[in-house]
Amino acid sequence: MAKIDLGRKVRSANDEIAARLRARFEKAGTFVFNLVSAPGSGKTALLEATASRLGEGLRLAAIVGDVQTKADARRINAAGIDAAQIETLGSCHLGAGMVEEALEKIPPEGVDVLAIENVGNLVCPVSFDLGEDAMVALVSLPEGPDKPSKYPAAFARASAFVVSKIDLAPHLDCDEERLIGDARAINPDLTVLRLSSKTGEGMDAWVNWLSRGAESKRRG
Amino acid sequence: MAKIDLGRKVRSANDEIAARLRARFEKAGTFVFNLVSAPGSGKTALLEATASRLGEGLRLAAIVGDVQTKADARRINAAGIDAAQIETLGSCHLGAGMVEEALEKIPPEGVDVLAIENVGNLVCPVSFDLGEDAMVALVSLPEGPDKPSKYPAAFARASAFVVSKIDLAPHLDCDEERLIGDARAINPDLTVLRLSSKTGEGMDAWVNWLSRGAESKRRG
Repeated sequence: MAKIDLGRKVRSANDEIAARLRARFEKAGTFVFNLVSAPGSGKTALLEATASRLGEGLRLAAIVGDVQTKADARRINAAGIDAAQIETLGSCHLGAGMVEEALEKIPPEGVDVLAIENVGNLVCPVSFDLGEDAMVALVSLPEGPDKPSKYPAAFARASAFVVSKIDLAPHLDCDEERLIGDARAINPDLTVLRLSSKTGEGMDAWVNWLSRGAESKRRG
Repeated sequence: MAKIDLGRKVRSANDEIAARLRARFEKAGTFVFNLVSAPGSGKTALLEATASRLGEGLRLAAIVGDVQTKADARRINAAGIDAAQIETLGSCHLGAGMVEEALEKIPPEGVDVLAIENVGNLVCPVSFDLGEDAMVALVSLPEGPDKPSKYPAAFARASAFVVSKIDLAPHLDCDEERLIGDARAINPDLTVLRLSSKTGEGMDAWVNWLSRGAESKRRG
């Protein structure tokens, strides 16, 4: 019982901060997405590839979570995007309080699209609201077709489903129809975006999705 | 404070059951490994490929954890291995209590090698002792070289580091030297095993490692 109650208390404290974040993002007119995937699925590579493709006049910034190391923020900075690293030092997900702290380095005002790259994990991040407009669930093709059925909560909460590393398709036996079908069975409203950060295939549709998000947020 | 104390309490309850499991595995002479990786790295594929290669007279069985679905135990059963599925229904790791329950279906007595396939997650499973002889950390090449530096606890605790999907190497830019070097910097005693469950490359060394574990456990 104590465990359940404490879990609830932690989440309700998180939700309070998330509501504050949401109000701030709203006022700033910033479109915020919470990028969730397994470790090594290509979250950072996607943000790097997005940097050069986002239209003129759309400013992108990133908050990057990792259990340890500051490497990802450095990679994203090198791609020309302002980025703040959060080291969770053991925690398997970002919390709204960590994001609020990171906003001291990356204020949302003047930013059109704010990416929050969560800790690589398909379970824990799903329960923690970060005040975002959209959760984006990402699965790379080498991970195989069974991720939606194994981690349904991530797909139920997500607005978009990015299938990454499609350049590897010829070298894999991944049943993409099943991968996407299972995700859509959990959440029929999912926008599905197949892409390769390496070759650029599918990047236009992803950038359009971000631009539409930013546009609708700007109009309020 | 409450959070830390509760975490400790949960882990100490886990350790008590793990000690009981360890004594039972000891008495049964069963070599037990706890297989930890990100989702989609190829844990189940490795167990399938192991089934047909483990020497005559060495009996393999598996306990398989997933947040949801019983698909992996079915896959492993189909490969000719007795397997019990644990659905953690939200929990991001296996606990010793779940393993103890699964032993009602898969008693270790008469089993030479017992694989415990943990939930796909490089963070949470590391803190929970399951009474195993060895933790095996697995990273697939498409995940890139930065997993050891980002998830050092898994590599510090592991006895063996399996690098999987090496058949994909020609199609990737993964710096394997860095991947293995970083892991060895965290834990110089790691046995590193590069393999492909698909082509069979490197499987002999993996099976030898298991056989040596079983042999030394049998001798007590």
